[in-house]
Amino acid sequence: MSVTAAQGFTAAGIAAGIKENGNPDLALVVNHGPRLAAAGVFTSNRVKAAPVLWSEQVLRGGTVSAVVLNSGGANACTGPKGFQDTHATAEKVAEVLTEQGIGGEHGEHGEHNAGEIAVASTGLIGVLLPMDKLLPGIETAAAALSADGGEAAAVAIKTTDTVHKTATVSQGGWTVGGMAKGAGMLAPGLATMLVVLTTDADLDSATLDRALRAATRTTFDRVDSDGCMSTNDTVLLLASGASGQVPAYADFAEAVRTVCDDLARQLIGDAEGSSKDIRIEVINAADEDDAVEVGRSIARNNLLKCAIHGEDPNWGRVLSAIGTTKAAFDPDRLNVAINGVWVCRNGSVGEDRDLVSMKDREVRITADLAAGSETAVIWANDLTAEYVHENSAYSS
Amino acid sequence: MSVTAAQGFTAAGIAAGIKENGNPDLALVVNHGPRLAAAGVFTSNRVKAAPVLWSEQVLRGGTVSAVVLNSGGANACTGPKGFQDTHATAEKVAEVLTEQGIGGEHGEHGEHNAGEIAVASTGLIGVLLPMDKLLPGIETAAAALSADGGEAAAVAIKTTDTVHKTATVSQGGWTVGGMAKGAGMLAPGLATMLVVLTTDADLDSATLDRALRAATRTTFDRVDSDGCMSTNDTVLLLASGASGQVPAYADFAEAVRTVCDDLARQLIGDAEGSSKDIRIEVINAADEDDAVEVGRSIARNNLLKCAIHGEDPNWGRVLSAIGTTKAAFDPDRLNVAINGVWVCRNGSVGEDRDLVSMKDREVRITADLAAGSETAVIWANDLTAEYVHENSAYSS
Repeated sequence: MSVTAAQGFTAAGIAAGIKENGNPDLALVVNHGPRLAAAGVFTSNRVKAAPVLWSEQVLRGGTVSAVVLNSGGANACTGPKGFQDTHATAEKVAEVLTEQGIGGEHGEHGEHNAGEIAVASTGLIGVLLPMDKLLPGIETAAAALSADGGEAAAVAIKTTDTVHKTATVSQGGWTVGGMAKGAGMLAPGLATMLVVLTTDADLDSATLDRALRAATRTTFDRVDSDGCMSTNDTVLLLASGASGQVPAYADFAEAVRTVCDDLARQLIGDAEGSSKDIRIEVINAADEDDAVEVGRSIARNNLLKCAIHGEDPNWGRVLSAIGTTKAAFDPDRLNVAINGVWVCRNGSVGEDRDLVSMKDREVRITADLAAGSETAVIWANDLTAEYVHENSAYSS
Repeated sequence: MSVTAAQGFTAAGIAAGIKENGNPDLALVVNHGPRLAAAGVFTSNRVKAAPVLWSEQVLRGGTVSAVVLNSGGANACTGPKGFQDTHATAEKVAEVLTEQGIGGEHGEHGEHNAGEIAVASTGLIGVLLPMDKLLPGIETAAAALSADGGEAAAVAIKTTDTVHKTATVSQGGWTVGGMAKGAGMLAPGLATMLVVLTTDADLDSATLDRALRAATRTTFDRVDSDGCMSTNDTVLLLASGASGQVPAYADFAEAVRTVCDDLARQLIGDAEGSSKDIRIEVINAADEDDAVEVGRSIARNNLLKCAIHGEDPNWGRVLSAIGTTKAAFDPDRLNVAINGVWVCRNGSVGEDRDLVSMKDREVRITADLAAGSETAVIWANDLTAEYVHENSAYSS
């Protein structure tokens, strides 16, 4: 499963000592080809971690022979030294893999080159990585690489995740699999969402890029657990071509979307301190941008997030959130349903709120803008005392 | 003090039975002239409560002879019936005051007219007001009007405020005084900030409007306690002219700004569940809009608000918030100080974070964009388990 479900990949997850508690903290994913095609999407935060700046550059070439990921430190806001550390990490991976004759033979350079090694980091912002532990860890990880290493890699990128997250779709002789960690910037002090997807389909980087952007736009980009945008978000898709299959684009794109959607739901389901997964569906919007804007405004309303935690179908807070947007709507035509009960009709009191049951973890909010025919779904979490506790008491 | 500090005003605050707990819930403020000039600013939420829609219309005329305010119900999202109730409330005030010969003689109509009665409400959204209690309450309030009634009026508009809020500035024979309730949309389910200012300066409504908009723009508009925009926010300024003094505009504007600033700080200091007042100063911005945008993004970052609650000088969360804005800045030139210690310099690690003491209620964050010379100050609160508790467990 995970990143080794597809043919042509090995992976490892080991404890390098970056985390003080001794838990696994370093993952390595190697593409053995014959293709080394890759695509990536990154955080839109203008304050970007060093590994994001590095990997954006790597992905411009469309070729990735390996990905190295660490938890235990985000390497964000670390200045020139932080960037040098990321560079040194990529160089070390290229050197070790080349020395040990692992993969690389299909690369542009006939061996591993640092410019084709993607790097991702997650952990506390503003702290330099312990390179004296990370660099030797790369040798350990390389020695542990295996075609069954996907689960171990998924475990090694966990921070405050309570479970590791993997998903796989196989059909017609080809596979898309992947691993993920985090949720938004939910975890305490962490810069957070890292995802690596792999496939053995025989596709070029342009096709991967198209499928990945289409998938993330309606999955990871619509997860809004706590409204906080990370400095480190990275989603990579690597193709080995090892299956020899060239799927139809639509089939491949749908498989990538399915894996992303599955992982995105796992992120929401494991969000720190959360007790509810909130599915916000905006319907009858004038256009998709309006639907997304309204969905996000609802997702980020702290008062509503508290109410949902308290199992209170407080539709007034939904309306007050919608009212802050620039979307097309008439306040007197807004309708809101919570778990299927239309508690607000025409901007005013609708069905009896006592009919709404909110005992389940999943809560469904439907906001009808009555302004068109477009729809978007945003996933969020409730706001809890546990969230406050976990995020107020970690670094000191 | 409060709205009766200035000459020419009477006020009352009584318990009409709108609140089930029997606390005061109805306030009346009457301008006895000789002027009945007024100005108002209202919520920019597109979902506006009935009293906001009504009072916006009243204020267009620039004449207000009385203001009636209730707590215990926001009369927001209540449809045509809610608007009819607001209208009936204004009619009742005009009728009772006219019958009892209280004020009104200086009005355009020689007596009170509903079109010159402003109405403000605060409380739960989506519930109709108990008019069978509110309308008789107006008679009780009219009978209780006095030149010492300002404090009672300030008490009657409280919802979950723990203290009532008043402020006064007097100079050169004229006075500006006022009362306020709430903070943002902090209170549980409440649609919240109501402010009435009065002055006995002899100024017309255009001058009042200019001074009020200038004052609110840098005071109430820069309070961002919990990021939630109310459906009911109302700030009114009434002038009686009773002092016979015509202050210079600059002096008057400064007095209005001082009273607004004082009340705004009181709102932050009493915000629900808060343990910290956070003063966010953005300096060296390219323009004021940039400074405000960055200040708000910092003010609304839940992770940072949690960190400040935990007295953790987590500057990485400040940078990740700045990074989400469109303001002009270079990530490598950002500097951040917390309580005067420059913990982030040039987008990277600065002075030792252990030098930062955060024991006091007030926490000062300075964000230096190094992009110009403009400045803005935004006030916010921390995020606490008490906030979650108070806002997750009220209406059911």
